[in-house]
Formats: sequence, structure tokens, C-alpha cells
Amino acid sequence: MTSFTLAELAARVGGEVQGDGALRIEGVAPLEDAGPAQLSFFANRKYRKAFEASRAGAVIVEPDEDVPPGRTVLRAAPAYLAFAKISTAFHPPREPLPEVAPEAVVHPSAKVHPSAQVMPLATVGARAEVGPRTIVFPGVQLGEDVRIGADCILYANVAVRERCLVGDRVILQPGCVIGSDGFGFALDLQGEGRGPRHYKVPQAGIVVVEDDVEIGANSCVDRATLGVTRIGRGAKIDNLVQIAHNVEVGPLSIIASQAGIAGSAKLGMGVVVWGQAGVVGHITVGDRATIAAQAGVGGDIEAGGRVAGSPATPDVQWARNSAAFNRLTEMRRELRELRAAVARLEAEQEKKP
Amino acid sequence: MTSFTLAELAARVGGEVQGDGALRIEGVAPLEDAGPAQLSFFANRKYRKAFEASRAGAVIVEPDEDVPPGRTVLRAAPAYLAFAKISTAFHPPREPLPEVAPEAVVHPSAKVHPSAQVMPLATVGARAEVGPRTIVFPGVQLGEDVRIGADCILYANVAVRERCLVGDRVILQPGCVIGSDGFGFALDLQGEGRGPRHYKVPQAGIVVVEDDVEIGANSCVDRATLGVTRIGRGAKIDNLVQIAHNVEVGPLSIIASQAGIAGSAKLGMGVVVWGQAGVVGHITVGDRATIAAQAGVGGDIEAGGRVAGSPATPDVQWARNSAAFNRLTEMRRELRELRAAVARLEAEQEKKP
Amino acid sequence: MTSFTLAELAARVGGEVQGDGALRIEGVAPLEDAGPAQLSFFANRKYRKAFEASRAGAVIVEPDEDVPPGRTVLRAAPAYLAFAKISTAFHPPREPLPEVAPEAVVHPSAKVHPSAQVMPLATVGARAEVGPRTIVFPGVQLGEDVRIGADCILYANVAVRERCLVGDRVILQPGCVIGSDGFGFALDLQGEGRGPRHYKVPQAGIVVVEDDVEIGANSCVDRATLGVTRIGRGAKIDNLVQIAHNVEVGPLSIIASQAGIAGSAKLGMGVVVWGQAGVVGHITVGDRATIAAQAGVGGDIEAGGRVAGSPATPDVQWARNSAAFNRLTEMRRELRELRAAVARLEAEQEKKP
Repeated sequence: MTSFTLAELAARVGGEVQGDGALRIEGVAPLEDAGPAQLSFFANRKYRKAFEASRAGAVIVEPDEDVPPGRTVLRAAPAYLAFAKISTAFHPPREPLPEVAPEAVVHPSAKVHPSAQVMPLATVGARAEVGPRTIVFPGVQLGEDVRIGADCILYANVAVRERCLVGDRVILQPGCVIGSDGFGFALDLQGEGRGPRHYKVPQAGIVVVEDDVEIGANSCVDRATLGVTRIGRGAKIDNLVQIAHNVEVGPLSIIASQAGIAGSAKLGMGVVVWGQAGVVGHITVGDRATIAAQAGVGGDIEAGGRVAGSPATPDVQWARNSAAFNRLTEMRRELRELRAAVARLEAEQEKKP
Repeated sequence: MTSFTLAELAARVGGEVQGDGALRIEGVAPLEDAGPAQLSFFANRKYRKAFEASRAGAVIVEPDEDVPPGRTVLRAAPAYLAFAKISTAFHPPREPLPEVAPEAVVHPSAKVHPSAQVMPLATVGARAEVGPRTIVFPGVQLGEDVRIGADCILYANVAVRERCLVGDRVILQPGCVIGSDGFGFALDLQGEGRGPRHYKVPQAGIVVVEDDVEIGANSCVDRATLGVTRIGRGAKIDNLVQIAHNVEVGPLSIIASQAGIAGSAKLGMGVVVWGQAGVVGHITVGDRATIAAQAGVGGDIEAGGRVAGSPATPDVQWARNSAAFNRLTEMRRELRELRAAVARLEAEQEKKP
Repeated sequence: MTSFTLAELAARVGGEVQGDGALRIEGVAPLEDAGPAQLSFFANRKYRKAFEASRAGAVIVEPDEDVPPGRTVLRAAPAYLAFAKISTAFHPPREPLPEVAPEAVVHPSAKVHPSAQVMPLATVGARAEVGPRTIVFPGVQLGEDVRIGADCILYANVAVRERCLVGDRVILQPGCVIGSDGFGFALDLQGEGRGPRHYKVPQAGIVVVEDDVEIGANSCVDRATLGVTRIGRGAKIDNLVQIAHNVEVGPLSIIASQAGIAGSAKLGMGVVVWGQAGVVGHITVGDRATIAAQAGVGGDIEAGGRVAGSPATPDVQWARNSAAFNRLTEMRRELRELRAAVARLEAEQEKKP
């Protein structure tokens, strides 16, 4: 069993032990489940009681956190990052077993790096490339001329269509689709004499997924009509997200589950889009902008902007207006009363010459 | 061809025939399509006309339903459940054909029960187990140490990642993903000297899918960061639903299509979440609470609570405020008129000493 | 390299060249990327500057478009359709390579047309049929008795469940699911003495996908409870869309990404549903109706109707009310001021006998 002293773990994250640094830690666990040989983690104040009741051998906390007396803690900043790094020590990323399974179907013209692993029932298309130490799970389908970089993990049933490019250290969760056709049709009223039809606009571009990106389960990234749909370096995309054709997602952006970005929208660096939000096409979202859950963004957002609601407005304004919305019935009653009062005043005034 | 007398079918569901119990029934069909040898079903009053016009040999109705004279009916309570059971008599669940297809890839250390069926091009990973009478369709990928119980059906292209546990009588629709990584990153401003990055928090937990659960096509259930993401006994989840890491879905809960439950949210027993609704992380939804379609839930809901809107409020209040929202333009006009009337009154008053 | 003169391309689309018709065109490209041997396209006025700065050899424009002097253009109506057709000349649809890969698994009773292509690791179930010139990519799973027409493309990891029917010239993007079970359960309070359960209503119907339909990546179309879920001729459905059991989508309808249509809803001909919108079950949407992004439709819509908002109302009304919503805080302030003014007036009046 992997184990470390608390002092060793503190050193890994530049943290400081308060209590017994020689304590042997055999794993990480949530506050409620952790035992005396486990390290836990406290950051969300909501879980203060669980922190106090925890049987954990030690707990990672922020440097200035108030802790119960006698509690052994590892102080580190930011505590959550320290937890992530220590958890990685106990749960290191999967290592590839360098081999192409005999039940995989690799086109003779494809190039799989000798250090890569291709599991059974995956396909690697003509001229496609799989880089060093990359792991390809069962049911992954890599189209013709696809290029996957080094140290990637492509989980089960991922599909990457022809010519799309995936960088290094990219993780694609199960069922994720890269390079599906964008949704583009031109209305053709004549339709070669057989009546109206939607004429398919060729989706001839590709998708580029840059280094250090992660894309969630069953999310879809459409290829460009012409040119490139781009997921920028280090961006992280959750499950069931839709990225339409010709979108650009800036580096280090975060897109939460079930959000959708429509065609040709450009998201800057470090943009955060929360769950189920939608962004219309052909707009620009500035660096570090934040879009609230379920927001509907219909126009440009400036750098650092924070919006909410549908249609989206600055989030502070939206919060005020939402609060007022919850008083609407009351406001209608007040309006009625005011109308009556004004009518009475007017009647009184008439009477007086 | 399977056939039953109407009286036999009534006996199966504890119902009562009004009309000819000896009528031979060869199948079930919608009101508009049913012929004289078919049994149909009437519950939604919206379809009253179709009921009256139907050529069905007999129709299942509630015990107290008003029926046209001469119409043969099977009265049962609840009628919909009776219909479901009778339809099952005509459409029994698929039986497994006990075999592992030669084109399936089953790891030597995996255990497939002799009564189970594994179809071509499915994979069963190292040490994984498939229980009695379970059916595994083509393209299903079961990771290492996965355990699938008895009498399950896993349809095409389902992926269950390593170590996840699935109970008995579970149905997973095509493309459903169990055990994808939760969406967890810690912001690392230094990033080993190469600038900011999102450091991946290991998602080291699992998913437990309890007995009698059904999960829809292309839905995703993320594994826990630590511990367990749990789908409780008898819960039913529709297509394209997102269940984030460490969520607990209580027994018998219902989650409709495209809804999303964010990380660490706890849903009680018998909770109902309608389509496209969203629930934020780290909150508690009480037993039997109901969340309306497209609602955005940002805080705890008490047992039996009913909410709607985004941000969600009690549904009665939301309905009133939504009605008022549709009068907002009118309210603005009234406000303008009142301002003018008050100004006039004030001017008049000035004039009078 | 494929190339055409500008005059040849104009002839293909019934357009007119203004400038050098002998210009050799080797491809199409966006305004910013196009070089002197490429044809580009200008329709969205938002990109006027890019049009003016473009190095494109020629640009497709509407017949009455104002163009900078010296710019070679191809005038055609509608310009977007002309672009689509010319782009197709450069990017013709993939041709099937008539063969069944040895790594595909085709049931002996299935019929694959000799001109069709079935790639490695696809399965074709018992009695299933694949029509002329249809292309079946790796990981596609076709269930028993499925019928796929002529000239279709089924991309990687598509699943079509038993008995579903797909017409001619249909395109299914990767991961799309046809024929998953509808979401139907009857509450069974007794549950054979073991307490309440959700009794599964057999989903015994099928899906019919008519000719010329396209369905996006990871979208789901549920089979009918009884009868048919129908996607009408020429309808186009984007990624991650949910179509529930017994829905009818009319011919030429358009459904954008992440929209959801609940059970038994009927959409007419040429209906347009924008992204993330939801339509409740058992309602009728008239021909050519338009449903705005994120709308929540709770009742019938008449032919040609245009709705927005949740709950949806006519879009003009919704736009006005949304504008008013953004003044709600201001309206509350005005109400407060009016109340104070009226109180003052009332007090004054008291004083005067």
C-alpha cells in the first residue's frame, strides 16, 4: 500500500504541519469517511460540523483556518490545490501498457507510437497517428488522418472524425464526439423541382483540440464549415456540452455541463460558462468573463464581465431584478391600490372649486 | 400469436370487464390504431374524442370513467398500471440467449455467468463480473473490476468505467456512460513555473447504481471524487441527463430528460425532476419534492416542496409572478399614467393656498 | 487539385460574375483566410470589414449587394445557397467503398447491399438490411430487423435499436441513438407486496426516420410506447437533442442543439426550434412556427406562431416584457415614490376642510 508521512506530503505541497508530522498517511478520504490513517480536506465552510466530527488522522486546511484544539492539520495555500496534488500521489494517472491489442483494428497506413496502448475493439483509421504513451480505450474510433498527441487518454467509445487534431495530455471522457458536422443548411426553395429542402452546407473544416484540454462524457465538438473549431490550451469542458462549428474556446476556459456555444462564437481566455447556459452564435465573450448557470447570452460580453439570466444582463442587475420578480404579485396589488387612491384624490379635487 | 381473453387479462390486473369477457385480444394499440382484436387505453381526457371514435375491441379505463354506451371496457385502478401490465403480457422482456459471442472480448480474469449473454464486439475488462441472465449488447465496454448484477440489460455502446457497481434488474439505454470523471480542477496560478493551469483533481471514487434503476440514452453519471456517486434503488433517469460527482439520487426518484444535478447534491426518496431543470451543487432536496421543467434550483428544498422558475421559488408563487410578468408592459404604462396623474394633483394643490 | 473557372461556378448556381470570369478557383475559404485562388462568401453584414479586407480572388454576394470597387464577385440569390452548392463541388460527399470489412459482424440473415460499405467493428443484426451505397462506420450497432435505406451515412458509434426504420439519404452523426426506450413508468404502490415501485411500461413501438433527415451527434430519438415516433422527411436535428416517444417531427423542421421535445408532441411542417428550448408533451405546434432559444413551450402553438420565454408567449410580447423586467428595480423605486407622493397628497387633503 502506498503511504507517506504527513511531513512528506506537506513538503510536496509547500505546506506546514500542525501536529505529528511523522503520522503515516495511507490515503485521502472525505471528512465523514476518513479514519486515523487518512488525510481529509476542509475548505467549504458548509461542512464545518463534519470537520469537527471527523475521525481523519489529519485534515488539509487554509493557512489561516481556525481549527479545533488537538486536531492535526496540514496548512497549505490554496488548500484545495494541495489536496488535489496529494490525492494525485495516492491516485497516480494510469500508465499505458505499450501494445496494440490484437482485437484492435489499426489501418496499415496508421502510425501508433510504440509506447502507446490501443485496447481491443478500437479503430485507428488510414494515416491516423497516435502519440507516445497515449491510451486508447475499447470502442474508440479514430477517423482517417486524425492526429492524437502524447500522453492522452481517450476513454471508451470516443469518436474523433477525419482530419481532426488533438494535442498532448488531452483527456476525452467516454462517448465524447470530436468533429461531427456543424449544423449548416441553406434553404433551397426550388430543390431541383421537387419542392423546398434544406441543402446541406459542406462542413469541410476540422476541430483542433489543443494541449491539456479535457472534454466530458458525451460532449460534442463540431468541425468547422471551413477552417477550424478550436478548443484552446488547458480549457476544461464538462459532460453533454455542445460546441458548434467555428467556435473558439479560449485557453483555460471552463464550460460546465449541458452548456451550449453556438456557431462562430469566440470565447476569450479564462472564460467560465456555468451549467445549462447558452451562448448565441457570432458573438465575442471577453477574457475572464463569467456566464451564470442557465443564462442565455445574446450579445458580446466585455472582458471580466459577469452576466446572468435569459436574456443575459450584468449579474448584479439580474439579481436585483429577479428579487423584484418575486415581488411582482405584490407590485401589482400596490399599483391597484395606488390607482384607487389617485382616483379618490382626483374625485375630491373635482368637488372643491 | 400470443392472445388472451379479455377476462383473462382483467384477472391479471384485478380489473373488471364491462361487456364481452370472452373477447379474444391479440395485442394492445393506441386508440386511433386499435382494431377489434386489440385492447386500447384511455386515461388522458385530452383524447376523449379518440376514445369515442376508436375501433378498439376493448379499452382500459379507470373504475369510475364515464364510457359511451355499447363500448366494451376493462375497468381497473390505476388504469395506466393495468395497461402497463397487460402490455407486458404481449411484450415480455427480452430473454438472454446464454452465450458469449466469439467476437466479444472478455478478459481471461473476468467472470461472465453461464446464463448471461455477451454479444459481439462488447468488451468485459479484467476481473469484471456479469451476473446471471444479464444481456450485454454490442459495443458495450465494461472496464476493469466492474460488477454488473443479475437480469440487467445493457444496450449498445454503453460504457461503464473501472470499479463501478451496477445492481440487479438495471437497464442502461444505448450510449449511457457510468463512471466518467467528475469535473474537478484546482486553479494552480504557478503551474510549475509555466503559468496558470487547472490542476486535475483525481476522481478516485466510483458510481453505485442500485437495483431496479433505469438510465436513459447518452446520460452520464460521473464517478465520485472520493467515495460514491449513488443512484438509489428503483430510480428512473431519462435521456441526456447529467449526474455529477458525489451526487446521491434517492430511491424511486424520477429525473426527466436533459436535467442536470451538480456535484454533491443530495436528492431524497421519490423526488421528481422535470426536463431541462438544473440543481446546483452541495444542496439537499427533500423526499417527494418536485422540480418543474427548466427550473434552476439554487438552495435546499424541503420534503414535499414544489418549485419552479429560475431561480426556483415555490411553484404557486412562481405561477402568479409569471402571470404578472406577462402584464409587465401594461404595468409600466399604468405607472406612467399614475405618475402623470400625481403630478397633476400636485400642481393643482400648489395653486390652492 | 479540383479547380473551376469562376464562370463555370457561376453557371452551376445560376449566378453572374462581375469581374474576371476566367479566374481559376481552387477552393472556398472564409473571408479572412481566402487567397487569390479562392472563393469566399459574404452575407452577414457583421463581417463587412472582413469582406473589404479580404484577399479572396472572388466573393459570392447577394445580387443587390454593394461591393467595393475592383472587387471580383459572383452575384447569386440566395448567396448562401450558392455558396453551399459551390462548396459541395469542392467537397463532394464521401463515396462508399463497396465492401463489408472482415472485422465487421454481420448476422448471416442480414442483407447488406453489395454497393454498401460496412466498416470494421460495426454490427448488423439478424434480418437487418443496409441499402445501396450506404456507409456504415466503425462502432455502429444496428439491431435486429433494422432497415437502413440507400445513400445513408451512419457515422461512428451510432446505435439503431431493433425494428427501427431509416429512409434514404439519411445522415446520422456519431453517437446518435435511434430507438431507445421511451420514458414511461406507471406508479405501482403495492409493487407485489414489496412496497412502491415504478412499473416499466413496455416501449413496443419503433422509430421511423424518413428520407433526407440528418440527426446530430449524441442526439436521442426514443421509440414509441405503441406505434411510431416519426422524424419527417427532410427534417434536420442538431446535436444532443432529445426526441421523446411518440413525437412527430414534421417534414423540413429544424431543431437546434440541446432542445427537447416531450412525449406525443406533434410538430408540423417547417417548424423551427432553437437551442435549449423545451416543448412539453401532448401538444401541437403548427406549421412554420418558431420557438426561440431556451423557450419553454407549455401549450399548442398555431401555424406561423412565434414564441419565446419560459413559459413561452408570443415573441414580440416576450421581448417587451423582458425589457420591462430589466427595469423592475426602477419600477419598484417609482412605486415607492408614488406611494409617498400619494400619501402626502392625502395628508394635505385631510388638512383642507
